[in-house]
Amino acid sequence: MKSFKIALAQFSPYIGNIESNVQKMVELAQAAQKQNADLIVFPELSTVGYPAEDLLLRPSLSKRTAQAFEQLSQVKDIVMVFGFVNQNEHGQRFNAAAVMKDGNILGIYNKQNLADHSVLDESRYFHEGHQHLVFDYLGHKFGILICEDLWSIQTVQQLAQLKVESVLVLNASPYEVGKPQHRTNAIQAVCKQFNFNVIYANQVGGQDDLIFDGSSFVINQNGDVALQAASFKEELHVLAFEPENKGYKVTPAAPALDTMAEIYQSLVMATRDYVQRSGFNGVILGLSGGIDSALTLAIAVDALGADKVQAVMMPYTYTAAMSVEDAAEQAKRMGVTFGVAEIHPIVNSFMQTLYPFFGNTPADSTEENLQARARGTLLMGLSNKFGNLVLSTGNKSELAVGYCTLYGDMVGGFAVLKDVYKTIVFELAKYRNSLEETPVIPPRVISRPPSAELRPDQTDQDALPPYDILDAILYAYIEEDQSQDEIIAKGFNKDVVAKVIQMVDRNEYKRRQGAIGPRISSRAFSRERRYPIVNGWKPGV
Amino acid sequence: MKSFKIALAQFSPYIGNIESNVQKMVELAQAAQKQNADLIVFPELSTVGYPAEDLLLRPSLSKRTAQAFEQLSQVKDIVMVFGFVNQNEHGQRFNAAAVMKDGNILGIYNKQNLADHSVLDESRYFHEGHQHLVFDYLGHKFGILICEDLWSIQTVQQLAQLKVESVLVLNASPYEVGKPQHRTNAIQAVCKQFNFNVIYANQVGGQDDLIFDGSSFVINQNGDVALQAASFKEELHVLAFEPENKGYKVTPAAPALDTMAEIYQSLVMATRDYVQRSGFNGVILGLSGGIDSALTLAIAVDALGADKVQAVMMPYTYTAAMSVEDAAEQAKRMGVTFGVAEIHPIVNSFMQTLYPFFGNTPADSTEENLQARARGTLLMGLSNKFGNLVLSTGNKSELAVGYCTLYGDMVGGFAVLKDVYKTIVFELAKYRNSLEETPVIPPRVISRPPSAELRPDQTDQDALPPYDILDAILYAYIEEDQSQDEIIAKGFNKDVVAKVIQMVDRNEYKRRQGAIGPRISSRAFSRERRYPIVNGWKPGV
Repeated sequence: MKSFKIALAQFSPYIGNIESNVQKMVELAQAAQKQNADLIVFPELSTVGYPAEDLLLRPSLSKRTAQAFEQLSQVKDIVMVFGFVNQNEHGQRFNAAAVMKDGNILGIYNKQNLADHSVLDESRYFHEGHQHLVFDYLGHKFGILICEDLWSIQTVQQLAQLKVESVLVLNASPYEVGKPQHRTNAIQAVCKQFNFNVIYANQVGGQDDLIFDGSSFVINQNGDVALQAASFKEELHVLAFEPENKGYKVTPAAPALDTMAEIYQSLVMATRDYVQRSGFNGVILGLSGGIDSALTLAIAVDALGADKVQAVMMPYTYTAAMSVEDAAEQAKRMGVTFGVAEIHPIVNSFMQTLYPFFGNTPADSTEENLQARARGTLLMGLSNKFGNLVLSTGNKSELAVGYCTLYGDMVGGFAVLKDVYKTIVFELAKYRNSLEETPVIPPRVISRPPSAELRPDQTDQDALPPYDILDAILYAYIEEDQSQDEIIAKGFNKDVVAKVIQMVDRNEYKRRQGAIGPRISSRAFSRERRYPIVNGWKPGV
Repeated sequence: MKSFKIALAQFSPYIGNIESNVQKMVELAQAAQKQNADLIVFPELSTVGYPAEDLLLRPSLSKRTAQAFEQLSQVKDIVMVFGFVNQNEHGQRFNAAAVMKDGNILGIYNKQNLADHSVLDESRYFHEGHQHLVFDYLGHKFGILICEDLWSIQTVQQLAQLKVESVLVLNASPYEVGKPQHRTNAIQAVCKQFNFNVIYANQVGGQDDLIFDGSSFVINQNGDVALQAASFKEELHVLAFEPENKGYKVTPAAPALDTMAEIYQSLVMATRDYVQRSGFNGVILGLSGGIDSALTLAIAVDALGADKVQAVMMPYTYTAAMSVEDAAEQAKRMGVTFGVAEIHPIVNSFMQTLYPFFGNTPADSTEENLQARARGTLLMGLSNKFGNLVLSTGNKSELAVGYCTLYGDMVGGFAVLKDVYKTIVFELAKYRNSLEETPVIPPRVISRPPSAELRPDQTDQDALPPYDILDAILYAYIEEDQSQDEIIAKGFNKDVVAKVIQMVDRNEYKRRQGAIGPRISSRAFSRERRYPIVNGWKPGV
């Protein structure tokens, strides 16, 4: 047994842009080779990126993949293990890994366990592989697995029986709160049970509503974590194999993130990647003086820099003076462009136009929605004129119960807090404030009772239960799939539970037209929680 | 061999409402039994309806299904073959059919071929079955298949080898233009090849963006069509088996529909089912004097009745007098409530508020979008106040290239023409006019050049190629997955093709926030054509 070096590329692909991804892979492989690495592992489907969705159905994919192999064959003196779409002579696609050296393909492995749960739809695109790939290199026996494969006991057992010493695992594992730690812990147990080392290379970067956190690792057969890469950034690591320990040299782990730091950084990366990759120069958002827009502003500034962020306050009759002051103060503390646009004349012109239709009907949420839509239209006007993307500022609690206005405050291209419950919004705001001596969010914004300010003296709690109760009910219903009866049995008020569930069920149509936003939970709306709009399911059991 | 009677229930389930669906199934079975039917076949997953999406993941599904069996056991003296979700002891779900008589379950069949293409995602919910079910009854050998099974040569061959005489096929086969005819033709060949009769029971009804056309049939082993049920309505048929012919008695087929009649009726049913099942009393739409809103109005009136439809004309400086006249004339001919709301003061108030931000920037699409958003907000205000659902009137060609305003003319809960290309909109308008002596759509609306009327003397062709060329390029790119190079090679102008494809690619974000609308093509946006928003795929090959 001799020593050797492996490289792990925690890499952020540009979905669908095979040419630029492969160019980056070439550069990473060459950099690793210069550091004397003998082998480099890339994430799952690294050529086209994950998930490329229906781009995978485009006929020229196989031609483009062939060009990618051509491009990769210029890399010399290092074995590359990378993900690509393998098509057989019948046109069947496989989610595959290639082992390539000096332009020669030494082996191909087809993923055996396709993922069709949560946000993943692999059976739409791929067939299952049925064979392991094991290869000897550097006096060492390597095996390959792709993402879901590692979570199938049967597949892992079969591979272990082939006496592999190191398993190269190519991954595109989407982020959820706590998942980085969970993966490392779970795979430590696997390594010890099956007596092999795992080199786990995960994709990093935001792709539409999905976050790939990276957090790649190498775990030795004795359970030691030889490498723990950082979350939410690209990294290239080179590790030495130590024959005497049958494992890789243990290197200092990236600092562990506590939950709020982890969530915050995930949102920053997702926002940056979405804005930059969709080609926008900057962003604009409505600043209300409330906590949601304050937090969104902080994330935007951390993601893009203050010079790329424009904030607008759009007061109306019901806007407290405190809100206007706080909005201005936030903008000042964060150093962003700030403007004020009164919506009074606009709301009046709508009301006058609608008066002949409305007659003497009493005021209701219609009039409140007009305020929200006047603001949405102003933001879109500024976006259209100057080319900044509108960030939507609503949170998951609001979106769940429909406490938001379609085409009003829901306007925007990216909803930063879409998957963040209101109670977590508060925690994140406090977390961000803890990072600097002068808090970037004025403390009053965090301490005052939340209000949409669409009626005199309105607070959110006029229409909703307190947020700690609301979020607990929502979490049980949405994340945990508990029934109305089960939630009531936990001790929540019967009528409150029934009302909340009814609001969730009735507002699917609103969510369906909302902007995408980064997924941090295990049950995000839209891509993950796929409910029909027309839906006759009755709550109860 | 003796004679017997079978019933076929072309049934429209209310998705998720197991209780009401099963109640309806009981009534249908009892009605069939009164007509001396010995057996009744229902569509795929008839208890919960198709597709119930993530409702299938709710834990109480198995409890609710058990109640459904209880409810169904009250039916006497007829064999029922119906679809349900079968869960085994490991919690694995199967898309299954039960054979039940007098409350006894005589057999269960699990679908063997799961569908994971186009709009179908069955691997998310189900495991594959691996066994055929064949049963003798009435001196006749029956087999069962579920939808996709019938299109697998291998599965059909295996079943044929078991010497079945009649195959009961439970289906939830989504509609596409021409599919009713295609199914019947294809299965005629299968019956002749394998020498069995097919009883094909299809779901009918609109469910969100999906249309189930029904168009059920019975085809004898000699290829004779013994039954051709109508499209787009619920029907119960009872057919006699004639031992002397080894097939079912041939009955008169429902009149065949030509393409425009088929599409038109599909949109009418989809609109009716969406509006009624989402609990709206009526609809409202903006009438522009153009052909899209005129056709949408006609469909709405045919779906719901004139008394449930409200139309509003919202003119501005660039609205031609002809448009106002034609809108009023359409509303009059169709007998709907009609109102006019000038948007001048609203647009002015927006412009004045934005002036300090815009300064002396030249006018561009920003100002045009303000007009569209003023209209959208007015419609939503009327919808909020009076409870009518807003119908969006855009067509597939516009939506494909983004020739529409987000939060403006895209406002609405249901986009009736979402999957209808502009060239087909013209055909449908002519078709509808051909049905009555006095055309419901004033002929000038069809003959004048299309215009969004957002600028002086604007026509759609200022920004887009003529619709026959645009639609041909879109069809090749979207429906046929042809590449830019392939489309240019067909003889289209290079720059035009490149521009159209770029517009399609860039406007995914708009489509993602658009209302759902009925799918009539084989590549409808959203549920079927799933493209990433951030997308680095380059056109070309």
